[in-house]
Amino acid sequence: MTIRKRYIFCAAIGVFSSLISNAALNEPIDIIIPATDIDNAKMELGKKLFFDPRLSRSGFISCNSCHNLSMGGTDNIKTSIGHNWQQGPINSPTVLNSSLNFAQFWDGRANDLKEQAAGPIANPGEMAFTHNLAVNVLESIPQYVQEFSDAFKQDKIDIDQVTSAIAEFEKTLVTPNSRFDRWLQGDKNSLTRKELAGYSLFKQQGCVACHNGPGVGGTSFQKMGIVSPYKTENPAVGLKAVTGIASDEFKFKVPTLRNIELTYPYFHDGEAATLTEAVDVMARLQLGKKLTEDENSKIVAFLKTLTGQQPSFILPQLPPSTNATPAPKPFE
Amino acid sequence: MTIRKRYIFCAAIGVFSSLISNAALNEPIDIIIPATDIDNAKMELGKKLFFDPRLSRSGFISCNSCHNLSMGGTDNIKTSIGHNWQQGPINSPTVLNSSLNFAQFWDGRANDLKEQAAGPIANPGEMAFTHNLAVNVLESIPQYVQEFSDAFKQDKIDIDQVTSAIAEFEKTLVTPNSRFDRWLQGDKNSLTRKELAGYSLFKQQGCVACHNGPGVGGTSFQKMGIVSPYKTENPAVGLKAVTGIASDEFKFKVPTLRNIELTYPYFHDGEAATLTEAVDVMARLQLGKKLTEDENSKIVAFLKTLTGQQPSFILPQLPPSTNATPAPKPFE
Repeated sequence: MTIRKRYIFCAAIGVFSSLISNAALNEPIDIIIPATDIDNAKMELGKKLFFDPRLSRSGFISCNSCHNLSMGGTDNIKTSIGHNWQQGPINSPTVLNSSLNFAQFWDGRANDLKEQAAGPIANPGEMAFTHNLAVNVLESIPQYVQEFSDAFKQDKIDIDQVTSAIAEFEKTLVTPNSRFDRWLQGDKNSLTRKELAGYSLFKQQGCVACHNGPGVGGTSFQKMGIVSPYKTENPAVGLKAVTGIASDEFKFKVPTLRNIELTYPYFHDGEAATLTEAVDVMARLQLGKKLTEDENSKIVAFLKTLTGQQPSFILPQLPPSTNATPAPKPFE
Repeated sequence: MTIRKRYIFCAAIGVFSSLISNAALNEPIDIIIPATDIDNAKMELGKKLFFDPRLSRSGFISCNSCHNLSMGGTDNIKTSIGHNWQQGPINSPTVLNSSLNFAQFWDGRANDLKEQAAGPIANPGEMAFTHNLAVNVLESIPQYVQEFSDAFKQDKIDIDQVTSAIAEFEKTLVTPNSRFDRWLQGDKNSLTRKELAGYSLFKQQGCVACHNGPGVGGTSFQKMGIVSPYKTENPAVGLKAVTGIASDEFKFKVPTLRNIELTYPYFHDGEAATLTEAVDVMARLQLGKKLTEDENSKIVAFLKTLTGQQPSFILPQLPPSTNATPAPKPFE
């Protein structure tokens, strides 16, 4: 329902604010709206926390390590590197536009960004810390204590505040004003003929059945390998791990295609190195279609028009630890 | 000679530009001057390269991983984490104000920032790449090719350009306008009585013999443990590794004390967790003096006035890899 409401809101804003052509209203993809209603104190605090490796056991891994905001909100590695160089089980999804997803993680096990942010901190294969230890670190740093107090008006820091602040920052990580969005808003010169042909194919071939909404994805779970099975050595079982329902095996959240040029490699196992490969596999396995080289190339051209304005902010300065701050333990 | 000239230049600028009190000219510490004469195209390119983990074999480690510009240009870990979570042999020195050092690395094995930048990329225990492979990655990325061409006016990218660009960016990472520098420039209210007493002790006790110049260090090699031997399990032998001269054993470049509040833990082995401990050890081992708690606390208060304006810039966006870009190899 929330997602649905957001679509309606997006469309409404579109009409009033940007002299949209009528066409846009009939399109299955909505423009990205810059974040509004942001609590600035929480957001600025969350930005620091997002970059702070002291939320990890090693003192080396921050949210930004695997959701690198210099690189499309991903690490551009097949599966991520965790504490002690452990190989992660799954490809890091982009944090960009993740507020538009109807659920978080590939298997949707978190309902929202706040719930998601709690996961990696305490995951032994990722940041390998505990929520209590993370809070202890933050409470030993007077500047953090002050900022939490200012943002949350409470006496003590708790993990709930930590993840709320990170989620507030992440809400700002949307990427409006892509060339495709400008086209949706009526600027007919913002796409080339080839890119438009790619968009037509994207609709005609059925890609939009799953990749729709402002995120061009992130609105449903779908089985990886509907028409033909997907072969992978990756052990992830998808939604089944959450629901326990056998038929949910290999169902994953449909990923956003926003900024897809930046978020290689592709799929939950990161096994598709290029967009060309990803489009080919998707067409065959999900739609039962073998695209020609020309069709593939047109769709790829269209996908590259989904790169929006990247978040732009000054690299945050983290408040220093004190004599009371527990030291990180990278090698224990 | 270069260093000496720089001091004279700094002092001269000080006189003309900021109505310095005469006192400042007699002080053994000079103010930090913001970087001038920066080649903007090289600097902006170098900023991207500094943040680009594709200069490492894993695609995960960038210059900023161990010289984190959110954390005083260090990683705040005893010794750094390298490729495959290898434990580094030595504490990562801050990159802040490193342009003021008379040599680079703890053992001075690089003459300047450009020479230094080449080291970690190819060090098997750090970024574990090769210069050739790093250049191959960059040449596969059209936006980099264009930026190198604009900055260096040459046909092909080479490692020399890579390290020149990184060094140009690093020249901008100076931290002017600390409270101590404002005091040097005549603002007598910028330091408390305790901090001033700490500065007097810092001079009287002999700390300035080694910690002097604009960097408050970085002007000489000194033996770690002059009066009493320094006990450590760290295997680094210091300058001897460069010169082969037996008497250079345990001689290290005197580190800068600028931003020392941010660059914990201390010493080449990172074994001093707090400034209190570091000041105590230095006084005993280097000067043969046992400071009282009060003296120690005053010196620590003074040291904290050396925190300057941190570099402030928008997090760079890295150009995406292409189908031709060699994939990173984090787990091979």
